[in-house]
Amino acid sequence: MESGPSDTPDRFADDPAFAVHEGGKLSVRGTRPIASIEDLSLTYTPGVARVSSAIAAEPALAKRFTWAPRVIAVVSDGTAVLGLGDIGPAASLPVMEGKACLFSEFAGLDAVPIVLDTKDPDLIVEIVAALAPSFGGINLEDISAPRCFDIEARLRERLDIPVMHDDQHGTAIVVLAALRNAARVTGRTLGDLRVVIAGAGAAGVAAAKMLLEAGVGDLAVADSRGVLHTGRDDLTEVKRWIAEHTNRAGLAGSMVGALDGADVYIGLSGGSVPESAIASMAERCIVFSLANPTPEVDPQMASRYAAVVATGRSDLPNQINNVLAFPGVFRGAIDAGATAITEAMKLAAATAIADVVGDDIRPDYVVPSPLDRRVATAVAEAVAACARQEGVTD
Amino acid sequence: MESGPSDTPDRFADDPAFAVHEGGKLSVRGTRPIASIEDLSLTYTPGVARVSSAIAAEPALAKRFTWAPRVIAVVSDGTAVLGLGDIGPAASLPVMEGKACLFSEFAGLDAVPIVLDTKDPDLIVEIVAALAPSFGGINLEDISAPRCFDIEARLRERLDIPVMHDDQHGTAIVVLAALRNAARVTGRTLGDLRVVIAGAGAAGVAAAKMLLEAGVGDLAVADSRGVLHTGRDDLTEVKRWIAEHTNRAGLAGSMVGALDGADVYIGLSGGSVPESAIASMAERCIVFSLANPTPEVDPQMASRYAAVVATGRSDLPNQINNVLAFPGVFRGAIDAGATAITEAMKLAAATAIADVVGDDIRPDYVVPSPLDRRVATAVAEAVAACARQEGVTD
Repeated sequence: MESGPSDTPDRFADDPAFAVHEGGKLSVRGTRPIASIEDLSLTYTPGVARVSSAIAAEPALAKRFTWAPRVIAVVSDGTAVLGLGDIGPAASLPVMEGKACLFSEFAGLDAVPIVLDTKDPDLIVEIVAALAPSFGGINLEDISAPRCFDIEARLRERLDIPVMHDDQHGTAIVVLAALRNAARVTGRTLGDLRVVIAGAGAAGVAAAKMLLEAGVGDLAVADSRGVLHTGRDDLTEVKRWIAEHTNRAGLAGSMVGALDGADVYIGLSGGSVPESAIASMAERCIVFSLANPTPEVDPQMASRYAAVVATGRSDLPNQINNVLAFPGVFRGAIDAGATAITEAMKLAAATAIADVVGDDIRPDYVVPSPLDRRVATAVAEAVAACARQEGVTD
Repeated sequence: MESGPSDTPDRFADDPAFAVHEGGKLSVRGTRPIASIEDLSLTYTPGVARVSSAIAAEPALAKRFTWAPRVIAVVSDGTAVLGLGDIGPAASLPVMEGKACLFSEFAGLDAVPIVLDTKDPDLIVEIVAALAPSFGGINLEDISAPRCFDIEARLRERLDIPVMHDDQHGTAIVVLAALRNAARVTGRTLGDLRVVIAGAGAAGVAAAKMLLEAGVGDLAVADSRGVLHTGRDDLTEVKRWIAEHTNRAGLAGSMVGALDGADVYIGLSGGSVPESAIASMAERCIVFSLANPTPEVDPQMASRYAAVVATGRSDLPNQINNVLAFPGVFRGAIDAGATAITEAMKLAAATAIADVVGDDIRPDYVVPSPLDRRVATAVAEAVAACARQEGVTD
């Protein structure tokens, strides 16, 4: 309706992405038809009053008689959208709609995109907390660092439904799954590896924490100013934590310098890495270069040095895609009635993703295809089992 | 999953309303399948980035390439739910889900229930304003008076999408439609009528304002303490406005007293009205008794005195049901790209509803059936035409 005079050729006609987005990508419908006065009287007044009264008397009944427990809010303020940065809520909405499509397609969950016209962390926390009775889980998305750390932590504290910032933990889970298999296919364990993570934003920080929990001992993380170490006086609270818990070798200086002799490069930063740096890495090294659409390390160049190369791109092998994690993680949490998504549940998800690859493992197949329908099921089962074992269910 | 040990008989099995609500009443799905890597790359990354970039550069494109313009948020704080009162957000959710079902069923719109865990009007306004880029319209629902007046007014002021508190205006529109036809079938005009409205909450106040705009000159409104008049010192701001603009006869005292000789009783209050009061009304009087499920005036008793009787009940003729108004009102506003729902648009909606009855008008058929599919279309066309004529489109 906004495409201008009809005699003007549509400037979006040549890009199929716009055709897919025409009119939006989601639809909400009732699960039952309203064909008779009786249908109307049961779905709406007066019948609905009996259901509302029952829930008022016994709040746990909301889990049985409303849609809330199976609905995920995909919440963003549009401040860190893909590689595009702070493009605002309206422009971020297609990403959140896409995410909602994936929740439905891969996990059979219902998801609602919620884009917020505010960047105030306090207000975002108040809003999401107030929205909570409408939903069964909160997927925070594309919220800039370091605000995202605080917002997620406060919401996890306040709410008794699963809350996860996917740019942190979804990415970290899939990175760990891929690294687990990359180590295996090159005959090593996670404990053997010297890892360099380039990027100390949402994904870099979460990946670092998760690799530490999974048993990677020798890990350095770099931001745009170089390797994080305790001698730096320009660190945020989160980066300081990372500096204190990584970099056992006491590295300083540039990320490129840290790559000398490293087994693993994990790029979560954008930018570009020179060939000489990759050439300086250890034999049979592992390169995960996840900036999208332009990886930090040219994949073809990387494959001349590395035993395993993974990217975020769908047109190359070993695509590290969050869709391998978030549908199954929320599905499992909801199936178990989990009140939170714990570290153990995320580790279980990573192992489940890695295990789907199984005996078919090859250097160019360390993670399943994003379309592999077995993944969400396996992740959901592993996450639900872990939640029950940990007793974080209601 | 919460229904207790499986050897206990389900205490909800005998009421079909609970069967209809089992697992919730809504579903969100993608509009296109995700069957290939190409589908994934267009619906989500990397393709979605081109769409988000385009919207960031030209915000009006959000109307074309997101679902927001056709999505209505059905927002409640659960403080005034049906006849149940302040039952809280979780217990109000089935009502909001039901409303969303009706938006879909009757107007082809997508609607999302949003129940809020706060009663603070300032925070509710901040929340809904922040949510606005996610939606094409805001249906406020079941928010208690007088808070609802202020919340709606502030949101209408702040937002450039349609905002309507349905308990006020949806009810008022259908009441006016029914009264228009009740006057016609009894050979009178709106200007001829002496009307008493019992109830000065959301619906009573909005109905009073709308009847004034439609040409009813002799109107008295009563709250639980009696008729509103300017000599009372216990009035809220909104009730004072009503007192100043109605009651030309200078009535004081009880609602029952005001009914003496009145042509029309409109019950929007609950409670009960004695037979003697109805017997004291004018010849061929009109009784709209809208409390649900128990009308203020027994309909059988009323029909001994009144020429036209309407209720909120689906098992009796002349059901005054908001579903006759809100789907078409929002559909029309959205079709026209309206930035607000004006008084003229609401009056146009009432006329359109009344006109659907047409030549089939009878004392027991002054409003169409809630299932009459012609209504939403007629209302949407009238509202859209009015919006375009008023120039409140973007």
